[in-house]
Amino acid sequence: MLRQSSHELSLATRGRGLYDFTAEVEAWLARQNFSDGLLTLHLKHTSASLLIQENADPDVRADLERFFKRLVPDGDPQFEHTCEGADDMPAHVRTALTAVNLSIPLRDGHLTLGTWQGIYLWEHRNVPHTRKVVLHLIGE
Amino acid sequence: MLRQSSHELSLATRGRGLYDFTAEVEAWLARQNFSDGLLTLHLKHTSASLLIQENADPDVRADLERFFKRLVPDGDPQFEHTCEGADDMPAHVRTALTAVNLSIPLRDGHLTLGTWQGIYLWEHRNVPHTRKVVLHLIGE
Amino acid sequence: MLRQSSHELSLATRGRGLYDFTAEVEAWLARQNFSDGLLTLHLKHTSASLLIQENADPDVRADLERFFKRLVPDGDPQFEHTCEGADDMPAHVRTALTAVNLSIPLRDGHLTLGTWQGIYLWEHRNVPHTRKVVLHLIGE
Repeated sequence: MLRQSSHELSLATRGRGLYDFTAEVEAWLARQNFSDGLLTLHLKHTSASLLIQENADPDVRADLERFFKRLVPDGDPQFEHTCEGADDMPAHVRTALTAVNLSIPLRDGHLTLGTWQGIYLWEHRNVPHTRKVVLHLIGE
Repeated sequence: MLRQSSHELSLATRGRGLYDFTAEVEAWLARQNFSDGLLTLHLKHTSASLLIQENADPDVRADLERFFKRLVPDGDPQFEHTCEGADDMPAHVRTALTAVNLSIPLRDGHLTLGTWQGIYLWEHRNVPHTRKVVLHLIGE
Repeated sequence: MLRQSSHELSLATRGRGLYDFTAEVEAWLARQNFSDGLLTLHLKHTSASLLIQENADPDVRADLERFFKRLVPDGDPQFEHTCEGADDMPAHVRTALTAVNLSIPLRDGHLTLGTWQGIYLWEHRNVPHTRKVVLHLIGE
């Protein structure tokens, strides 16, 4: 019989960067005791993203950060929305270029992540924030 | 008992720009009378996007537009696919850089959008279009 | 009565480029015999993407490739993660700029894709790979 479950995670960031929270997601999943289904993650913010990326070499995260810093420079004079500082509008643009939703099927009690895939919260603001992620699980 | 419901919304645009249609989505949701579940939105086009973004300061939308205009310039001579004009291929690239699907959990009768999150249709073509968005709801 | 079904597709690529696999998805769907529901696709890799794009003019795919090649140049000296070659880190960046999940509602036995929408695997690495895509279907 299909059923569903949901939860809100709170994640504290130390400022800009990629934070792996796969373990938090899997810990919640384990308590729901589903074998097969669909997990959806939704981030309730517009200046941070959800991303599935390589969880092996930390250079990948550093390079992603470098690339996005050059693509969407802080303090770009073309931006009008600067009320919260030089990283305010770049955070919104980085969010638009990535995503705030992820959908990952569950099979045989496990997320169908690839060997090298981790689930990341990408904080785009320079100062620490508390970010809320809604988890929704449907299946059996 | 879990159930599902779906609907196709028609949205008229006045040309390039971001259109908040959160209210249309919520009006349909209210009529379905679900308490908890998962809402999926799918846009049936390849030259417009769906985006969750800040719904407070209109400067955010203007800055997003400015950024994408500079990143993917209309009339870029490297593009071969120009049959519908200088904004044709840039519209496809902007769509590839953003998304045509969104997934938002529903809890206690409400979408789990953050305080500042709105659901936008981002029209990438210069002339007005009618855009179709499929809404799918599963839950109870 | 709602039910679910899932499957893992294996797709062989011949190196960088966009591969339409809509027909493979639809063939699996037809065998599941659902009328209405939600299809989710998840790619188990971090150097390739899933993309819904125009399936008519092949120039669109060539232009997408050209645009991304210029935006994320192979061999960019700012990248540290180069263990698998000049296209290694660009492949991760392209994946971050696009997506590894898609969600498409099913209505009356058909995917609600628009007339010009196809489902693509975007291989970002230069050499051929075998890519795994998980399909999850829930509905009835």
